[in-house]
Amino acid sequence: MDYKNITVIAFDADDTLWDNEPFFRNAEHKLCEMLAPYGTEEELSDRIFGVEMANMPDYGYGAIAFTMSLIESAIKISDGKISAREIGEIIEMGRQLLRLDAAPLDGVAETLRTLKESGKYRLVVFTKGELLTQENKLKRSGLRPFFDKVFIVSDKKEANYQGLCHDLQIEPEQLLMVGNSLKSDILPALNIGATAIYIPYEIMWQHEIIDHFEHERMRQVSNIRELPTILQTL
Amino acid sequence: MDYKNITVIAFDADDTLWDNEPFFRNAEHKLCEMLAPYGTEEELSDRIFGVEMANMPDYGYGAIAFTMSLIESAIKISDGKISAREIGEIIEMGRQLLRLDAAPLDGVAETLRTLKESGKYRLVVFTKGELLTQENKLKRSGLRPFFDKVFIVSDKKEANYQGLCHDLQIEPEQLLMVGNSLKSDILPALNIGATAIYIPYEIMWQHEIIDHFEHERMRQVSNIRELPTILQTL
Repeated sequence: MDYKNITVIAFDADDTLWDNEPFFRNAEHKLCEMLAPYGTEEELSDRIFGVEMANMPDYGYGAIAFTMSLIESAIKISDGKISAREIGEIIEMGRQLLRLDAAPLDGVAETLRTLKESGKYRLVVFTKGELLTQENKLKRSGLRPFFDKVFIVSDKKEANYQGLCHDLQIEPEQLLMVGNSLKSDILPALNIGATAIYIPYEIMWQHEIIDHFEHERMRQVSNIRELPTILQTL
Repeated sequence: MDYKNITVIAFDADDTLWDNEPFFRNAEHKLCEMLAPYGTEEELSDRIFGVEMANMPDYGYGAIAFTMSLIESAIKISDGKISAREIGEIIEMGRQLLRLDAAPLDGVAETLRTLKESGKYRLVVFTKGELLTQENKLKRSGLRPFFDKVFIVSDKKEANYQGLCHDLQIEPEQLLMVGNSLKSDILPALNIGATAIYIPYEIMWQHEIIDHFEHERMRQVSNIRELPTILQTL
């Protein structure tokens, strides 16, 4: 496999550039503690996940959407017995998710710098989620200057990847997608003919999990720092 | 004033293409009824507006953000006395805002058709708010096919209008912005050198109200149907 056609490298944001999922899981864990009288953590998590999925067509992805689903879950699971003060606590937990440091993961800043300084690629962010939530995290990460453009979309399916290529005025063969989710970052990119680098993250949201697989245009690495060598930029 | 340089017409969405604000005001009114023991409607509305503005840097604009602020307001105003069931009702009111018909306002569909069929312009949507919320309304409106591109942004300030021109690869002189908000649609567009058509809507959100003003590159009309004549497309 070579990468000679690649002109744009698109990076997923959450759990690729910075930590995100552990904070969501922690918020859910705290809610489960609050709701302990109503079930085991596993039972409660299942019900929360059900509410999240039912809300997906209306709310989409993001921390505010997630917080709304936590509030609705708390009301439903407690059968209306949860107090307004506890719901206030959920709102504050959600607010913390909007204010994450978004400190770059190990190797991210130096890798982006190396790739940018090579002058060979346009670097872009391609993330799903809430507009302002993602913009604010990117700002706080300090990584914004490395990117030529930031795309925040409501979902990352094949059509969204085609839209990305259209907006960038490139063919899919020119796109390298880098991310931690086989479902959102890797499979749809491969399916439209792009190339992908898969960097697994320690914790996966249940919604994003799919079985392990291999593909001739996909390569798995354990740290983003391997990118320049793989691309023979160095 | 002439419009001979115009190559792109950008339309605001909420309260320009379809009704929106009255549904938000109605939800707020219902919350004020729920909270009637705690103050007059004017006092309650002021406090709700205060919560909304305090949340703006984290939540941004949109119906889910608005619903979160309503819930927080209810908890704060009632000093934690509101019931979980009532908060559940607020969540359901908010859900209705995500499911608005978005039926096109009088004259919108025929005007878009006329402008599109003239072949003289690219038509785009330029709206702030939540990605999925706005995408879903546009889909339900049936207006999507008239537009070459849809831009959903976290705010509509001068920098966002500059970004719009950059993405469209046009100079500001080529852009005509059409909308109902002097603050979000008209002033920033004029300030970057674009041209604007102002179509006031019956109800304005307090946040969007600014004093009346005039400008050589702005024209006010009472119905979108006047556009083709003004542009001498007909």
